[in-house]
Amino acid sequence: MDTFTADQVHVLVRDAFMRCDTSASNADSVATALVAAELAGQTGHGLRRVTSYCGQSLSGKVNGHATPSAEKVAAGTLKIDAANGFAYPALDLMQDLLPDMARQCGIAIAGISRSHHCGVAGVIMEKLADAGLVALMFANTPGAMAPWGGNKALFGTNPIAFAAPQSKGGAIVVDVSLSKVARGKIMAAKQKGEAIPEGWALGPDGEAVTDPNIALQGTMVPLGDAKGTALALMVELMAASLIGANTADKASSFFDAEGPAPGVGQTVIAIDPTKIGGENVLDRFADMADSIAAQSGARVPGHRRQQLKQELMANGIGIPADLKAEIEALGK
Amino acid sequence: MDTFTADQVHVLVRDAFMRCDTSASNADSVATALVAAELAGQTGHGLRRVTSYCGQSLSGKVNGHATPSAEKVAAGTLKIDAANGFAYPALDLMQDLLPDMARQCGIAIAGISRSHHCGVAGVIMEKLADAGLVALMFANTPGAMAPWGGNKALFGTNPIAFAAPQSKGGAIVVDVSLSKVARGKIMAAKQKGEAIPEGWALGPDGEAVTDPNIALQGTMVPLGDAKGTALALMVELMAASLIGANTADKASSFFDAEGPAPGVGQTVIAIDPTKIGGENVLDRFADMADSIAAQSGARVPGHRRQQLKQELMANGIGIPADLKAEIEALGK
Repeated sequence: MDTFTADQVHVLVRDAFMRCDTSASNADSVATALVAAELAGQTGHGLRRVTSYCGQSLSGKVNGHATPSAEKVAAGTLKIDAANGFAYPALDLMQDLLPDMARQCGIAIAGISRSHHCGVAGVIMEKLADAGLVALMFANTPGAMAPWGGNKALFGTNPIAFAAPQSKGGAIVVDVSLSKVARGKIMAAKQKGEAIPEGWALGPDGEAVTDPNIALQGTMVPLGDAKGTALALMVELMAASLIGANTADKASSFFDAEGPAPGVGQTVIAIDPTKIGGENVLDRFADMADSIAAQSGARVPGHRRQQLKQELMANGIGIPADLKAEIEALGK
Repeated sequence: MDTFTADQVHVLVRDAFMRCDTSASNADSVATALVAAELAGQTGHGLRRVTSYCGQSLSGKVNGHATPSAEKVAAGTLKIDAANGFAYPALDLMQDLLPDMARQCGIAIAGISRSHHCGVAGVIMEKLADAGLVALMFANTPGAMAPWGGNKALFGTNPIAFAAPQSKGGAIVVDVSLSKVARGKIMAAKQKGEAIPEGWALGPDGEAVTDPNIALQGTMVPLGDAKGTALALMVELMAASLIGANTADKASSFFDAEGPAPGVGQTVIAIDPTKIGGENVLDRFADMADSIAAQSGARVPGHRRQQLKQELMANGIGIPADLKAEIEALGK
């Protein structure tokens, strides 16, 4: 596996999108986000997505030429229409506009509708933290989890992401999807022909399953069972129902190129910590990070990811030869 | 067990607090909250707390005569000082002031510091939903959970509560504390001399335990293990570090009458759903509730509690004779 600089990987990805019916500015935004996912060690949200994304812009499921638009409907409220394009240009627009609104009111909210896969939610929140804000995001995804006791998927795996800046070192970043395990683990078990542990997923009738093929026709089990389902509902209401995005049961796949756009939603809340917390607030966040780091065996969420980024920036990002060839062949 | 009207129970509780060095208005506020907890079926946050609360106002750990104060530091930001009194008068002040701020900016945040036990977080959020707002609360509690891999409690059981109004019927209410099981279950096992299942709690050195006595010296296991711990950290940062309240490791007990005030925090975010979501937003919330209710075996969070309230309002609240006698004897 050869390694490449972040800039080289950016060009590789950007050019693939530009060959696949995506505008230069959108290709640039998507490439930046996918490289950031690689740098965060989240390869499942990085270059492994390029072929799938490009297929969707070629088929028109995603509008590669969409221009997101924003409307400030109140002093602290921003409505963003991703216009059935990729999510990243809309998230960039949020990043441009929301911080000043948060600084003015002390808090501000943005709802991004007609959106698509938001990738690594924690990385997006970390950018707001790097701008001095406390940030919270709710994102919905295509149907994956049933209400507790039910058997039809009404909620996605629905990440909650949060970041807080601190006075020394990188942001504290929480990024938690609400399924007990990632769906990718079940897909991996299917490919290997292995059974999955009971408790990861339910079959189409809500029954316990260990066969990954049946599990993939059913629903994922949330973390913390009934409590986790309640949190997934909260995320669904915040990310979709509140802002008029498609709920999980109506959202098409983030992977294939078929059908209408997913039309999912992301809702972001940004808080100016100095308004509500005064001048020492970043020291208090640092104190918490220090208290965690002082316990052997414990680590501060986000910090391993930040270390990895530094290592990859210094040593290069490895790309398997077959993946590189696949990306280079897209749109040719 | 005799039953009493909500008004009768209110007078019983209010008068006990007035005999125990608590001002009439604070006694009224606390009684209203504890009766609301009973009506929600959350008896562990209801009348069972009166003796403990009154002991704390008598000892001065809680200032029964505190007057909470609010300062609007930005258009969408409210700082509330509970002044080491009970939490409920401060939460009442939040309920009075935050909705108009949320309607103006589309979103508003309140941080309540020098606070105490907030009781049933979902009931407080439901009041904001009944005023037409989407509401989200983070509350920290005395140290109960360690960072993942560690063994010293830095986080409380830290509830997240959420409520959304809908166009027909009662609010959707999510109320989730982040420990796998309530500490009360371990205390009950101790009283019965029974072992607890592995996975509920860890001992003082972070080891797996089944002895409830050792478990009570250690830490609670979060729901969803590492993911739940990350959410507990998020709540701790939002409810305490952000607003300058005591973090869980510095907060004294909500139960005994010893030592300084707990000084914990509650952070509430209120959103005007019509600003960001337009005029049909309450119908979309209702659609989600209907989709859940349509699945046999599933139920809409908050609705069972609302039914119970109607039943108890009609039929009366049962109070065990010994508990009633105990409350009547307080401060005499």
